[in-house]
Amino acid sequence: MSGSSPGPPALDVVGIGNPLVDVLSHEPDAFLDEHGLVKGSMALVDAARAHELYEAMGPGVEISGGSAANTMVGIASLGGKAAFIGRVRDDQLGEVFAHDIRSAGVRFETSPAREGLPTGRCLILVTPDAERTQNTFLGAAAEIGPEDVTEALIRDAQVTYLEGYLFDQPLAKEAFRHAARVARGADRRVALTLSDRLCVDRHRDDFRALLEGPVDVLFANERELLSLYEVADFDDALQQVLHHCEIAALTRSAKGSVVVSADDVHVIDAYPVNGTVVDTTGAGDLYAAGFLYGLTHGYELGRCGRLGALAAAEVISHIGARPEIALADAAAAILV
Amino acid sequence: MSGSSPGPPALDVVGIGNPLVDVLSHEPDAFLDEHGLVKGSMALVDAARAHELYEAMGPGVEISGGSAANTMVGIASLGGKAAFIGRVRDDQLGEVFAHDIRSAGVRFETSPAREGLPTGRCLILVTPDAERTQNTFLGAAAEIGPEDVTEALIRDAQVTYLEGYLFDQPLAKEAFRHAARVARGADRRVALTLSDRLCVDRHRDDFRALLEGPVDVLFANERELLSLYEVADFDDALQQVLHHCEIAALTRSAKGSVVVSADDVHVIDAYPVNGTVVDTTGAGDLYAAGFLYGLTHGYELGRCGRLGALAAAEVISHIGARPEIALADAAAAILV
Repeated sequence: MSGSSPGPPALDVVGIGNPLVDVLSHEPDAFLDEHGLVKGSMALVDAARAHELYEAMGPGVEISGGSAANTMVGIASLGGKAAFIGRVRDDQLGEVFAHDIRSAGVRFETSPAREGLPTGRCLILVTPDAERTQNTFLGAAAEIGPEDVTEALIRDAQVTYLEGYLFDQPLAKEAFRHAARVARGADRRVALTLSDRLCVDRHRDDFRALLEGPVDVLFANERELLSLYEVADFDDALQQVLHHCEIAALTRSAKGSVVVSADDVHVIDAYPVNGTVVDTTGAGDLYAAGFLYGLTHGYELGRCGRLGALAAAEVISHIGARPEIALADAAAAILV
Repeated sequence: MSGSSPGPPALDVVGIGNPLVDVLSHEPDAFLDEHGLVKGSMALVDAARAHELYEAMGPGVEISGGSAANTMVGIASLGGKAAFIGRVRDDQLGEVFAHDIRSAGVRFETSPAREGLPTGRCLILVTPDAERTQNTFLGAAAEIGPEDVTEALIRDAQVTYLEGYLFDQPLAKEAFRHAARVARGADRRVALTLSDRLCVDRHRDDFRALLEGPVDVLFANERELLSLYEVADFDDALQQVLHHCEIAALTRSAKGSVVVSADDVHVIDAYPVNGTVVDTTGAGDLYAAGFLYGLTHGYELGRCGRLGALAAAEVISHIGARPEIALADAAAAILV
């Protein structure tokens, strides 16, 4: 960060994304076939389809989720100062989402909408192989617009973190661009996560333009990166991304991650999981949390990546996409 | 059951109780002290107190609960035919409750209320010793009245099962008595669970009158039974209960259970838990499920008790008060 910023930022990161409540049920593989679902995918569904799937699902458990929201919770768990911007309705699921993120220590001040679609949810079918098939009804989240972007929060944060999923809605896209402009105007950094391979397929040109424009830090997993550049080989994609943003943190599941900048390249192993891998949801979200905590606390990039790996390893060791322990304690053990 | 009943009942059991959604969070012991909570107790709270506690609680997980509702889900999981009567609002938590119980195979046809208090919930604080401290906001459940008791369901069920917690509300008490009258009029059995020691303290005379009146089958744990008869010794209470109802199934945690009738006494060991005891909530509810499944399928009383012990052992081996496996499979293994 340059010295021309208007004062020390009060926040480390502000995330903008889809506030969702996850609804999880265990289903046999046959359920996916019957309902035309592709195992492991994330599909956007409308209210009617969400209703149809929910009717067919077994008993569920509700737990707050949403990609950028999970990342902000991870940053708070590491001891960082995080805020979240996203649109819920003034309904019970909206209250649950707001309660959960606030009680995790994240600032969340977006006023709940008083009309329109209900709070968004993600119907998650867990098959016996522990794979998850996600069906997201965005609901109120999809109607976020530039007026929901609290400029003071953006100016107060070292980094504004944008969730690629938001790109599916024209108004949300505007909110995104507005936030990026405000951040850049205040000499802050802008980070983007590509979110999903299919999301990249839908918005490839937009994402590339963002990388060549206001985005400083890119988060992507291997499949998303290959889709972005329409190449088949990780190294081919790597050669391209280097020219398009200041920092790229590229995750490769069990193969670890690669962090690149103009000056640096770090190849980081996956952090060992305590016990077995129970549920991989949230791995990317928490990697970003660890990385951004490090970046906003002046760590060198390799250490940022290792902290990301540690946070990801914790979240995949249990059900749910938010940490179950204070990550600050786990981080202290490896970062002394 | 006598041959004078108006035809073979279509249902095994119909339960009447409080439909609740449990909200669980992990808290340190200090949380209980700060908020004046007694570890392991179940307190009834009003909307303001529920709000205050929820604000103070950490991030939560939502999962359907309610004592009699859990029992009906257990009966369905054993392959029995169960229905549930209870009052939710037409809100999101009401939809969650209805979805979860129906998709578990239980008939639930009570129309959601269109006005009044929201769907009830139970705020459950899990301390590091795995104990649970429950704070129940009954909400819409408390406003159940005789008009909510679907007489056809009562007449169609071999047993009508009543949750003692309902006794805290005058209208609900009426609903209770109405259901018992309808059941007896159709020559069906009436079962009662005392629910909670403090609940017995509040309604001792009413419960005793019920036992001397319409109730055929009593479920109680040791503390509830001692409170009912205001004695200090289990055997003293046992001598009294024998004169007051046809069958009593008395649970004693790790000491197992005692089942008594005019002709029989069975002393049944606790069923071994697969792994460790993770969460004792629902043990009594699932014991009742196994017992009632047996009773409505012509099992002798000792076998009813052993099936209850098996169902209770499953539910305490994991978080949550409803079975995670098809109990029918587990039961088949021991009952061949």
